[in-house]
Parts: sequence; structure tokens; C-alpha cells
Amino acid sequence: MSVDLHRLSINQETLKQWSLEQLADGCATAGIGSVGLWRAPVQEYGVRRAAKLMRESGLAVTSLCRGGFLTPLDAAERSRALDDNRLAIDEAAVLGTDTLVLVSGGLPPGSRDLPGARERVADALAVLGPYAQERGVRLAIEPLHPMFASDRCVVSTLGQALDIAERFPAAQVGVVVDTYHVWWDDLAPAQIARAGAAGRVHSFQVADWITPLPAGVLLGRGQLGDGSVDLRGFREQVDATGFTGPIEVEIFNEGLWARDGAEALAEVVQRFREHVL
Amino acid sequence: MSVDLHRLSINQETLKQWSLEQLADGCATAGIGSVGLWRAPVQEYGVRRAAKLMRESGLAVTSLCRGGFLTPLDAAERSRALDDNRLAIDEAAVLGTDTLVLVSGGLPPGSRDLPGARERVADALAVLGPYAQERGVRLAIEPLHPMFASDRCVVSTLGQALDIAERFPAAQVGVVVDTYHVWWDDLAPAQIARAGAAGRVHSFQVADWITPLPAGVLLGRGQLGDGSVDLRGFREQVDATGFTGPIEVEIFNEGLWARDGAEALAEVVQRFREHVL
Repeated sequence: MSVDLHRLSINQETLKQWSLEQLADGCATAGIGSVGLWRAPVQEYGVRRAAKLMRESGLAVTSLCRGGFLTPLDAAERSRALDDNRLAIDEAAVLGTDTLVLVSGGLPPGSRDLPGARERVADALAVLGPYAQERGVRLAIEPLHPMFASDRCVVSTLGQALDIAERFPAAQVGVVVDTYHVWWDDLAPAQIARAGAAGRVHSFQVADWITPLPAGVLLGRGQLGDGSVDLRGFREQVDATGFTGPIEVEIFNEGLWARDGAEALAEVVQRFREHVL
Repeated sequence: MSVDLHRLSINQETLKQWSLEQLADGCATAGIGSVGLWRAPVQEYGVRRAAKLMRESGLAVTSLCRGGFLTPLDAAERSRALDDNRLAIDEAAVLGTDTLVLVSGGLPPGSRDLPGARERVADALAVLGPYAQERGVRLAIEPLHPMFASDRCVVSTLGQALDIAERFPAAQVGVVVDTYHVWWDDLAPAQIARAGAAGRVHSFQVADWITPLPAGVLLGRGQLGDGSVDLRGFREQVDATGFTGPIEVEIFNEGLWARDGAEALAEVVQRFREHVL
């Protein structure tokens, strides 16, 4: 792999048009050494089989997306969520990644209690943290952009994520710094420093912010360099904390998915060099 | 007007299907004593004529929306923006409202410098604040939801808005607390207390948060009670600072606009009683 790309990891969702085998082959061909994987396609392919594919392709798995959805009020639902997260931790261990990304979950139907929902996330981590640590997996709370606060993730800022993470050892719980979600936050630089100092930057992901947002807003992420985010500035801030881990490119964008995978990947690599390194 | 509705103000955009005359008539008929107005329809009707209409209908004007868009880098554009804001202040004075709402503006094309854009907002307020004060008008910085940070408003939180407002006397610059924009923010309660203690809550607006967001996200506001916001909790927080001013209902929602105006207003009043008072 090119020496300047040694920290680049391609999140599987960035190249959703590719099967797992195409991803492994395409990344190896492009000289990329790391990928971030998602549970559904990995489960479909077979977790052990996927682990073997990655090993044989020389690819490191930098993260597994995603556990979480830990906000149910209903006891049975809550118990199912914990079981599913234990399974996700097991899958991460099999894949050989040390990081499970957590999307915390939104408000239960009819609820308006954000602080209560955030407390339930912390309660669940008290159960899941030790389970993960025993398997060599770190849980990474991903603050999602506040536009997802009601339906996807009640943890909206790095400050909130760290307030929860710091109740646990760093070897159990840290945070994801994803530029798409935190770029607007004037408190993000201080929170990145706080996370880095405590060894809690468990994942660093990059995507750009573009408008207009599409309906539902989930698939509105921009190609690196197409939007408003000072990506290099964020990379330098994260690096300044001593972080030397992978930089994962995670872009959900239907335009990118409609293109030839190899061509889309080549553009990602070029943009990564131009706007992140 | 009903005694329990004495603080209710209907923002004109909530009933966009109504002309200014229909709004004046409809509010008077429904026993509502206050409205918030928007510049474009007021200009179209004539500012002095609109002021007269409101006076004769017994309606107080609680705010004028909106000045702002103070982030241009280009000197000529910047000068035009200042001129337009002076005009907006003059219009507010003619309408007899003491509050001009400011939407600060987004990033200039190609810029990724949020802190720089926020500084330009502050620079503009140094010019506009005294001009407004001489005319009995207070400028109210409205933090907009972070999903608008790139294209509409670089001020995303009450904390940021107050950091800027506090550089000026409270009689010149304060903030808008709009539940739609700040509901997700765990720091909002402390910032509401900070704003209230300094007499800087210059406007309090309510709308609910619903999903899925529509394309472009601007018209996704929810009717009171339809969404995730603890509206009464916010009203109580704002009141706890000693605030006794108007509570303005500002909902941009195409479903509401498609309905008969009087029927939509009756529902707003009912929901206001049920979820805000």
C-alpha cells in the first residue's frame, strides 16, 4: 500500500455497490489496507467467512458498524437490544476489529424525555462494557448530528458522548469523531482534545457536509472536498491529541453508489489525499 | 382575548395561507392579541399600512422576521446587507415591535471557515446595535438548528448566540429561544438561564420536532404536540428566568398551510393550551 494511504480505511457503506468480495478485491488492488464493515452484509456473507476473506486479502478491519439502539423503555425490547449488542461484540471479535461503533438510538414512541433516554444508554453500557473488554473490543459512542436526535441517536455532541463514556474505563467505552456529525459544533475542538487526552478517540471518520439535504436526510453525506467541512483541520486536531489510528471514509451518497465502484474508490482516494492528508 | 391566551402570539408564517388582512381579522376574531410578522408580506402590503392595520385590529406586533445574513466576505455585499438590516430596523420601528429577529447567514460560497463567519456577524452587530437601540428595537440572534449551519445560519446554539450577544448591551442584542432549533441540546437549559439572567431572551418561539424531515428540511416543523419536544418544559424553563413576554408560535408546515386558516388557527390555539401553557 502507498505509504501516504497507510491510515486510510474505506467504510463499506461508502462503496455500497460492491459485494464484500468486490470490496476486498477492489481495496487490495487500490493499495488500501483497511476497511470498516457493517453487520448486515457481513452476516449475510457469514461472519467467519468474512473474517477469512479480509485476512486473506490482507485487509485490517478498523471498525464494525454498528451496535446501539439502547434506548427502549420496554423491558423485553431492552433485553433484546442487549442480546443483539452482545452478538455484535462477538462478531467484532471474530472479524478481528477492536472497535464496535454504537448508534445510541432515538426516543421511544411518544417519549419526549431526552435526558432519560441518554441515561438508558449509559445503563446499557454498564452491562456491555465489561463484556466487550473481555473480548478485546472497545465500544465507540458515535454522536450523530442533532437532526437525528429524535429517531436515531439521542447523543448529539462529542460533549454528551464523553459525559457518558467517561463513566467507564477507556478500554471499554470511547467515542467516534465523525466530521459529518460534529463539524458545526464550536465546542468540538475542545471535546476532541478531551477525548484524545483520555485515549477515547476509538474511531475517526470523515465525510463532507453538503446541501440541500435529501428527504429523510440520511443519505445526504458529501464526497470529501465537496462541502463545508474543514476536513484537514479536523484531521490535524485529532492528530494533535496523539491519535495515530485509522481515518475511515464513510459517505452515504446515492450518487457515489450509482457509479462504478473502482472509479468511485479512485475518487475517494484522490480526495482523501487532497483534502484530508 | 381569553386570559390564558394573553401571551400567545401567532407568527404570520404559521398561517401563510392568510393575507395580512385575513391574519388581522382571524386573530382578532379568535381572541388573540399578538402576531409576529415577516418582512416580505409586510413590504408588499406597505409597512405603514400594515402598522395601521395591526393597530386598528388591536394587535400587538411581537417581532419582525427577519434581518441578518451578515456573513458575506465581499465588501459590497456586506455593505448591502448592513443597509438592508437598517431598513429592517426602520420597518420594525414603524410596526411598533421592539424585536427584530436575526438569521445570521451561512457560509459564503467555497468557505469552510465557521469561526470567521461568526466573527463577521459580531462585527455587523457592532454597527447595527446602536442604530437599532436609537429606534427602540432590540436585535435577537436566533440560533438555528445545526442542520442549517452551512446555508442559513452559522450560529447553531444558544451558547454561541450568547457568546456574540454578550459583547453588546442587552438593550441592543439578545437571543431567540426557539424550541425547534434548540430542543436537542443538553446545554440549552443552562443557556436559557444565562440568557434570562441577563435580560437577553428577546423572543421565545415554539414549534415541535417531527420526522421524517422533508427534502431541504426547511418546512419540516411540527404542529405543537405532534413531535418530540417537551414544549411545556421549555416554557417553564424560560418563565423560570423571569421572562413574561410573548410566546410566539412559528410553524412552517405545508400540511398546516393547506388547511382552512381559521381551522388551522383553532387547532394551534387548542394545542397551545394543551402542550405549552
